[in-house]
Amino acid sequence: MKTNQVFTEATSEEINQAAQLASEAFKTFSKKSGLEKATFLRAIADEILAMGDDLITMYQSETGLPEGRAKGERGRTMGQLTSFAAMLEEGSWVEATIDTADLDRKPIPKQDIRKMMVPLGPVVVFGASNFPFAYSTAGGDTASALAAGCPVICKSHPMHAGTGEMVAEAIIRAAQKTNMPNGVFSNLNSSGIEVGIELVTHPDIKAVGFTGSIQGGRALYDIAGQREEPIPVFAEMGSINPVVLLPQALQNNGEALAKTYAGSITLGTGQFCTNPGLILGIKGANLSNFIKVLSTEIVKLEPSCMLHPTIIGNYERNKQTALQQDGLTVKADFNDSVAVNHARQTIVTVEGETFLENTTLHQEVFGPFSMVVECKNSEELESIINHLEGQLTGTVLGEKEELEKYSSVIDALQNRVGRIIFNGVPTGVEVCPSMLHGGPYPSSTDSRFTAVGLHSVKRWVRPFSFQSWPNELLPAELKNNNPLGITRFVNGLNTSNKI
Amino acid sequence: MKTNQVFTEATSEEINQAAQLASEAFKTFSKKSGLEKATFLRAIADEILAMGDDLITMYQSETGLPEGRAKGERGRTMGQLTSFAAMLEEGSWVEATIDTADLDRKPIPKQDIRKMMVPLGPVVVFGASNFPFAYSTAGGDTASALAAGCPVICKSHPMHAGTGEMVAEAIIRAAQKTNMPNGVFSNLNSSGIEVGIELVTHPDIKAVGFTGSIQGGRALYDIAGQREEPIPVFAEMGSINPVVLLPQALQNNGEALAKTYAGSITLGTGQFCTNPGLILGIKGANLSNFIKVLSTEIVKLEPSCMLHPTIIGNYERNKQTALQQDGLTVKADFNDSVAVNHARQTIVTVEGETFLENTTLHQEVFGPFSMVVECKNSEELESIINHLEGQLTGTVLGEKEELEKYSSVIDALQNRVGRIIFNGVPTGVEVCPSMLHGGPYPSSTDSRFTAVGLHSVKRWVRPFSFQSWPNELLPAELKNNNPLGITRFVNGLNTSNKI
Repeated sequence: MKTNQVFTEATSEEINQAAQLASEAFKTFSKKSGLEKATFLRAIADEILAMGDDLITMYQSETGLPEGRAKGERGRTMGQLTSFAAMLEEGSWVEATIDTADLDRKPIPKQDIRKMMVPLGPVVVFGASNFPFAYSTAGGDTASALAAGCPVICKSHPMHAGTGEMVAEAIIRAAQKTNMPNGVFSNLNSSGIEVGIELVTHPDIKAVGFTGSIQGGRALYDIAGQREEPIPVFAEMGSINPVVLLPQALQNNGEALAKTYAGSITLGTGQFCTNPGLILGIKGANLSNFIKVLSTEIVKLEPSCMLHPTIIGNYERNKQTALQQDGLTVKADFNDSVAVNHARQTIVTVEGETFLENTTLHQEVFGPFSMVVECKNSEELESIINHLEGQLTGTVLGEKEELEKYSSVIDALQNRVGRIIFNGVPTGVEVCPSMLHGGPYPSSTDSRFTAVGLHSVKRWVRPFSFQSWPNELLPAELKNNNPLGITRFVNGLNTSNKI
Repeated sequence: MKTNQVFTEATSEEINQAAQLASEAFKTFSKKSGLEKATFLRAIADEILAMGDDLITMYQSETGLPEGRAKGERGRTMGQLTSFAAMLEEGSWVEATIDTADLDRKPIPKQDIRKMMVPLGPVVVFGASNFPFAYSTAGGDTASALAAGCPVICKSHPMHAGTGEMVAEAIIRAAQKTNMPNGVFSNLNSSGIEVGIELVTHPDIKAVGFTGSIQGGRALYDIAGQREEPIPVFAEMGSINPVVLLPQALQNNGEALAKTYAGSITLGTGQFCTNPGLILGIKGANLSNFIKVLSTEIVKLEPSCMLHPTIIGNYERNKQTALQQDGLTVKADFNDSVAVNHARQTIVTVEGETFLENTTLHQEVFGPFSMVVECKNSEELESIINHLEGQLTGTVLGEKEELEKYSSVIDALQNRVGRIIFNGVPTGVEVCPSMLHGGPYPSSTDSRFTAVGLHSVKRWVRPFSFQSWPNELLPAELKNNNPLGITRFVNGLNTSNKI
């Protein structure tokens, strides 16, 4: 395997070159058929696997994550690539919509109009710190953008630049083997913010994908919005993923729930966007017992290693900021000495009124930290939900009949989140068409899109209409004889028939 | 009919009240079934028609537009409302996507996840000056937002505030008759910009629809993007709608095309977003003849009345700005005296090189004005297209075989527009599912959406996932037995079957 690689900051010249190459590549790549793009995506997955243990070793050396996680995440990444390939092979994703002509219509003849999704142009993807494979170089943003027909420039994450470089080489090998144009993918290294800003402001760039902090995502969103030609930024940012404990569930099942949540809070050292950082319950003996069991169980778990020194530094600092607020009680804090970069898991409690008054307590502490809020009653609990910022997920732990009894609480929660879970944990994001990974701001910059699942391709495409266009010159998706056999919306009906 | 109505600026208190009512109304309106919302939309259409000639008279007195246009636009507005009603009655528009559980899956059980579109929240709609019915109070933005389940606050256009008030009353009568919540629709009057700014910055507002100038749309976009919680703004703004004259068509058919375009440029006194303001051709005798016929024909038409004094003032000013640029030749300018508010139609020509160098010439002159650019060759023509800002439409006038011969010109044009037309005129926007009315910036603020057609509802909804949710408590669209009989994407296949 490669060792001692030297990474240098991308220069303005390299940024310009990557953007111009991407813009040039767009002319041909945007016209590749679904089958051609699918071959490319499958080749990327093959090339990643072909690097075998060298890649896994590099990943582990840069992240401190165990082999099982590395291989699992590699599998997920390959699965994402091949699921987009399957979507392209099937082909109906372009939302082909056809209204045929009626030239005899009075008073005005009706023209033939046909619409389908077309790619936006070159996309910049910012690698995420917490998913070196699945949300970085060849991750979900890249896979969905390439599927859309958009060339990608990846701004590699500095903390796993070696992994990024290897995966980038795999993508470029795959591009060459499948005859994709030069510039369809570039990887740029940078440890600062300047390269990212130059990329986002470059006139050849037409959209941006980002996974990371609210501060970082919002900065890119603002920069992109202030361009002469504003471009869309989909940033998936922070979330404290509120969990609502309903009274009956707490009474019937409190201890088991506490044990489950000790696991969910510490999963992956708490480094998931969907980590449950806020637990809301109604004050009483059952909630006290839940807190007791959760606190006892969580310190039984061995602290684990965070991804890199910056992340654990932020974890400790953000946790201290929270702990310095009035009214917080520390219920569990792993106190024994821990190895370097290993995070101490922490559970704190606070009264509902205190939480409502102090929005510092609403901020994410990225890591194995969770806050249990003891509410006076369900009205206070509902009020807290109404005052939360937008979240990726909300979870309800309850008996079925409690969902109806507390319907206004559930309604409030639905209004604040992108995905709602009944009697489960928010961690573990299934990659499937029905998954919504995003949500009201600031969990994402645009709640109308998702970062996970096949529909994430919609971030990088725009509908385009052809009017009275000669049939033989239309894209295959819109031709009368439907050569791809896709499902289309023709004169108001879904059909895969010819016209 | 009503006369001498007095309109007063909405106060901050009224804005606040409308926003709070809308926010409260959202709680119940967002849960109305498709059938209930459809009944509401159909009732609005009925109430508008029931006002009969009183409404038509008010429209004409405020706009100077003829009765035929008023009645035609009323019909289109009612047609939009009923087409959204039909979409709601059918029900599949929510894009229900279901992945059922596989709890035996190894290593991790697969949970049941179900996704559908849900409304964003209260929407502010800015009435357009040029469509008092179809793009104002009960126009496309309002109809699509109500269909989505979003309450609407309309900022009425000051130049047809009386028409707006009457239509608003019709909407409110319809809401009352169909049991919609108080606050589901409000109409606010304002002649300045403060009311709009207060609305867009109000924390209860979740999205904005706008049709108008680039200056106005961009200002709202910037304000919305700078909120603590940014919200989406869909602004449909300016466009010069380039028309490409290919040589063979010009030779075979130049005179007929010139006559057609004299009509298209002056249709509705040039007050359509899709008015052809830029015609690109390759220099030569055929182009000169086209210009001659176009100029001769266009002055034969009687000048007509613009919508209001501000619009004709802007037309004259913007036309003068263009005429003062170096290198412009006036080929036609209706010189006889005209009645008050009547616009003189104007055709100018310019060399390709001059046009390329001076971006002032790329700006829209809203009204019956068009500029013919005489290009040296097809390379210069293509370069001009590449340097244009984003446009709603692009039109190609050519013989079929020329589409292939000039494929790089066509590709360049496709990349700059939302809709491309072969051998037709851009004016006349069909309201149908395949229509894309929008396009790259600045023709719209987000090319991923459309302002016209059923898919315009997508501006106001977000996907939302339910995980492991009890079947009996799911929305009807996601229940196992598919009680609405809609088409859903279940485990990777489109079907209307039960699960």
